[in-house]
Amino acid sequence: MAQQDRAIKTRRVILEAAASVFDELGYDRATIAEVLERAGMTKGALYFHFASKEQLALAVLEEQVIDIAVAPQKIKLQEFVDAGQILSFRLRSDPLQRGAARLSVEQGANRLDRNQSMMSWAAFVESLLAEAKERGEVLDSVDVRETAELICGAFAGLQIMSKVLTDHADLCRRLTVFHEHIMPSIAVPAILARLDLDPERGAKLDAEIQARALAEGEAA
Amino acid sequence: MAQQDRAIKTRRVILEAAASVFDELGYDRATIAEVLERAGMTKGALYFHFASKEQLALAVLEEQVIDIAVAPQKIKLQEFVDAGQILSFRLRSDPLQRGAARLSVEQGANRLDRNQSMMSWAAFVESLLAEAKERGEVLDSVDVRETAELICGAFAGLQIMSKVLTDHADLCRRLTVFHEHIMPSIAVPAILARLDLDPERGAKLDAEIQARALAEGEAA
Repeated sequence: MAQQDRAIKTRRVILEAAASVFDELGYDRATIAEVLERAGMTKGALYFHFASKEQLALAVLEEQVIDIAVAPQKIKLQEFVDAGQILSFRLRSDPLQRGAARLSVEQGANRLDRNQSMMSWAAFVESLLAEAKERGEVLDSVDVRETAELICGAFAGLQIMSKVLTDHADLCRRLTVFHEHIMPSIAVPAILARLDLDPERGAKLDAEIQARALAEGEAA
Repeated sequence: MAQQDRAIKTRRVILEAAASVFDELGYDRATIAEVLERAGMTKGALYFHFASKEQLALAVLEEQVIDIAVAPQKIKLQEFVDAGQILSFRLRSDPLQRGAARLSVEQGANRLDRNQSMMSWAAFVESLLAEAKERGEVLDSVDVRETAELICGAFAGLQIMSKVLTDHADLCRRLTVFHEHIMPSIAVPAILARLDLDPERGAKLDAEIQARALAEGEAA
């Protein structure tokens, strides 16, 4: 493995360990020592990549959005639906998504800039909606920025509710209910009729992404 | 003042002090000592009403729902909209609502039963929707339980987003956007056309409630 690849892998191991600590303990009680133990790394390796606990948390929040890569679909709004379903499915077990979710919603004693996380998600959703609107999939009355912020804010709450009640087991189903309620106010009728809002979609798409990544890894 | 009235008033003062401590410090860092100082009470007075910090937090969460009393309207769904707008307005400054909001969404280090708060709100919304449905205001396709949980979950997230970005100053506006998106999937068209989703409504209704309470107090 080239030195650069090794560095990328080390960084990822540290990020996942940090995310799992944030998930279990929250930001305030998380310690660098605990992250080192879970990652099986030395202090030097961690500080090479991250200067502080705050840097670690911000990196987890940033990585979260990059991590959701959906396969292109004929209908752009389907990609938006799919991104939500994949995220909902991963919140059941993916340490990075779980850690980032807790960091995003807990105020804690810290001054961690949680704006950034909310706004990265809103920008991500806005770009999908804007492209869908250009293609004529979205109703003229929709203000894509406003709707994107609504979607991200509402999703944050739905994932908290699902976490409290079922440790995220019913989140895909809750997201389907949300989409069933808002898509008639967003999509034009001809697109609405063709959207697949199935709550099982996240699991299926996630398996496809994993299989593709594995195949690419073997090819490389 | 009769002894019972005094006890009710003392209980309320303690609850508001506790809520403001939970709002600022979160559950984990809140202490009984801090609550006593803000309430200007003795330990004896507090422990007469509440056995522990946990009891205080549960009481704040419970009181929150009871506190939202909307004036009856010709359209039942308008009462549902109004309850949300009043709550959104009060989150700007009402210590009880602010403290309860933070308690509801923060996981912290504790085993506080946050289910109960989510479920009280869901039951409250469900009862309003069920009555609206009986009156023919709600579409047949709506599962009132499912929709009530969606509304409470989504609202929790919208208030976090609004808190992070503007300390709740734009929450009424965000709630209007939410209602604009979901009401077409809930209300029958003739009712939809008559709903007032104005974000200024919360401030107006809250002022009316305060004026009524004052008048009743003077009459008594």
